[in-house]
Amino acid sequence: MPVRQRRNPGSQTALRLSNQQRILSNLVSSGPTTQADIARNTGLSAATVSNIVKVLVDRSLVSTSPTTSSGRRAQLVSLSSTNGAVSVGIDFGRRHVRIIVATLDYRVIAEKEIEIPLGYTAAEALDIAANLLTSTLSHAGVQHSAVLGVGVGVPGPIDRRTSTVVKGAILPEWVGVTVGMMEESFQVPVHLENDANLGVLAEATWGPHAGTPTVVFVKVGTGIGAGLILNGTPYSGNIGLTGEIGHTPIYEHGLLCRCGNRGCLETVASTTIMIELLSRTRARPVRTRDIVRLVLEGDERAIRVVEEAGFAVGRSIAAIANLVNPHTIIIGGPLTDLGEMLLRPIRSGFARYAVPMIVETTQLVMSSLGERAEALGGASLVLQESGIHPTVG
Amino acid sequence: MPVRQRRNPGSQTALRLSNQQRILSNLVSSGPTTQADIARNTGLSAATVSNIVKVLVDRSLVSTSPTTSSGRRAQLVSLSSTNGAVSVGIDFGRRHVRIIVATLDYRVIAEKEIEIPLGYTAAEALDIAANLLTSTLSHAGVQHSAVLGVGVGVPGPIDRRTSTVVKGAILPEWVGVTVGMMEESFQVPVHLENDANLGVLAEATWGPHAGTPTVVFVKVGTGIGAGLILNGTPYSGNIGLTGEIGHTPIYEHGLLCRCGNRGCLETVASTTIMIELLSRTRARPVRTRDIVRLVLEGDERAIRVVEEAGFAVGRSIAAIANLVNPHTIIIGGPLTDLGEMLLRPIRSGFARYAVPMIVETTQLVMSSLGERAEALGGASLVLQESGIHPTVG
Repeated sequence: MPVRQRRNPGSQTALRLSNQQRILSNLVSSGPTTQADIARNTGLSAATVSNIVKVLVDRSLVSTSPTTSSGRRAQLVSLSSTNGAVSVGIDFGRRHVRIIVATLDYRVIAEKEIEIPLGYTAAEALDIAANLLTSTLSHAGVQHSAVLGVGVGVPGPIDRRTSTVVKGAILPEWVGVTVGMMEESFQVPVHLENDANLGVLAEATWGPHAGTPTVVFVKVGTGIGAGLILNGTPYSGNIGLTGEIGHTPIYEHGLLCRCGNRGCLETVASTTIMIELLSRTRARPVRTRDIVRLVLEGDERAIRVVEEAGFAVGRSIAAIANLVNPHTIIIGGPLTDLGEMLLRPIRSGFARYAVPMIVETTQLVMSSLGERAEALGGASLVLQESGIHPTVG
Repeated sequence: MPVRQRRNPGSQTALRLSNQQRILSNLVSSGPTTQADIARNTGLSAATVSNIVKVLVDRSLVSTSPTTSSGRRAQLVSLSSTNGAVSVGIDFGRRHVRIIVATLDYRVIAEKEIEIPLGYTAAEALDIAANLLTSTLSHAGVQHSAVLGVGVGVPGPIDRRTSTVVKGAILPEWVGVTVGMMEESFQVPVHLENDANLGVLAEATWGPHAGTPTVVFVKVGTGIGAGLILNGTPYSGNIGLTGEIGHTPIYEHGLLCRCGNRGCLETVASTTIMIELLSRTRARPVRTRDIVRLVLEGDERAIRVVEEAGFAVGRSIAAIANLVNPHTIIIGGPLTDLGEMLLRPIRSGFARYAVPMIVETTQLVMSSLGERAEALGGASLVLQESGIHPTVG
């Protein structure tokens, strides 16, 4: 998975970053290495390697120790692990914050999810997440200064020109929130991304779909969105507003949607509408996990709701597949535990509306990462922006 | 526009082709050049340049003439022009074949469109096109052996794994036709492509949209399809079946479509349905060009039909834009002369269904190439597959 290029590729900064990435990647793949060997492996000069290693030591990303090589004194460079440098992913949902802490070699060393009150403000959520970050790091024995960065997922579109959450978010309280405000809260570099885009990134790094050139990840949750990997690269379009499929019209005379149109996909297939429908005849409101439980227990109303939702998701996926002809489509979000009970109606809607040869050649599967996908993708994003890629196999 | 890579990039063939492309590109940008200067400009050895120039002379792509450089004898290499090597684009429609012959520096030197009978077989169409190729070349004074290749557009999906027209084509008689059958007819190398894919390629080479990284071309004709340029590259997905938007459901209880579903975009917005609707109250059937004439004359029924079609196209374009967030969307096909009369309802459907910030930031325009787009794209395809790119400015 190539790094997204934000910087002018010819600039001094880009060159320094690229050299740094080459050294870190070499350490990830080869383990502890002497400075002389790093220079040999990367084609960089000894002086360049020595300068960059100094910077990396200052940032706690690597540590050095004296050793001997061919009978001469040398400096052994090691990637900081467990209690050294880490990458953090934080995923904000409608009612939860999830944090994942990973080492530079893509091992998860800490993970936590907490509930947050419905209708929170962005400032409140950032406060809660900042406390969660502090306590999780402290629990894992990791210094705050060792955090390479935090990859944050929010369930809404990000305008890449300004790194700001824009209107369309399922959580209107996030609109206008910027990377800068998040960095203020977390006191580390932040990479902000739409949750479905983090989902597809997680599938391509932590999931079984690494190396698949064209992948669509569809998150079915409080809202519905898609993340795309096209030609092997995370795809971000003109200004970053990709995968906004939640308001695809499904039913001409359907429910009025908060967007102003009628019968949008989200009025048929989001967990929000499922919860609303299933709560009507119950004493207390059902929650997302109850949808899964009820269906698996054989509740006919819940099965009916999930089947209608799945068919509509399948129909929207057909339109996506007819347009971008992906190799693999992955369904993610909080309902993945439903397995075939959700996948069957999705397949049925897909087969009904996609071009037959696309139906025959597209792989349609459930995410194996479940609700962890977005936070894992956040941790991946930070690592990939630093040029640290998972070793294959 | 980078060449699509079909060959193993590390192979000897790929290397030879890449060197050949470098030399041709140098000649396109610099004009006649000595072999020694070509070597200097391209970084290739004198022996490599000399070998490749020999091959290119044999294929009539370049010619050489003796000259002197710094007082020494030298070989001046020139790109063959008008009566030398050419690229040909052939576009098959439901009732027409169009041919365009272009030089290696992207100048059109011959162009012709002929009508063909409705319900022709593929073999008949290929015969007609082969005769058209022979007569057009002979008229333009170009040898058949000087044809670098023919880029053929058909209004249907191409399976890239086998270079075969597959089901879904508006012209069922083309299903199963292969590149090999076309090469048999035309006796030159053939590149086969879907018409909308050629349309977007034409816009990015002959039109005003060169250099735009993310472009969607929507052809509204007998059928409706889209061609995509994503991240600066023509996009072909997993097996080449991209942009199949004609069967996006629009009306739940709409007309039954030939695909088996109801209310597909093509049952509302193709020229086929417009012709059917407008012919009902007329003594003799209207033709595509009559739609344009009637609307421009102010015929209320024709205006109504075009407005409904445009709104539906706009709605489908909204779904495309919400997914891939393009910089520019171009409307092409035989109705482009309608201008604002078609663009206005398209804009209206687009604004109703796309995410507001996408509406604000996406350029939505009419093609300036009209019905020539697909044949021009065919000629471009051949040139680009040979590494010959238009000089900018």
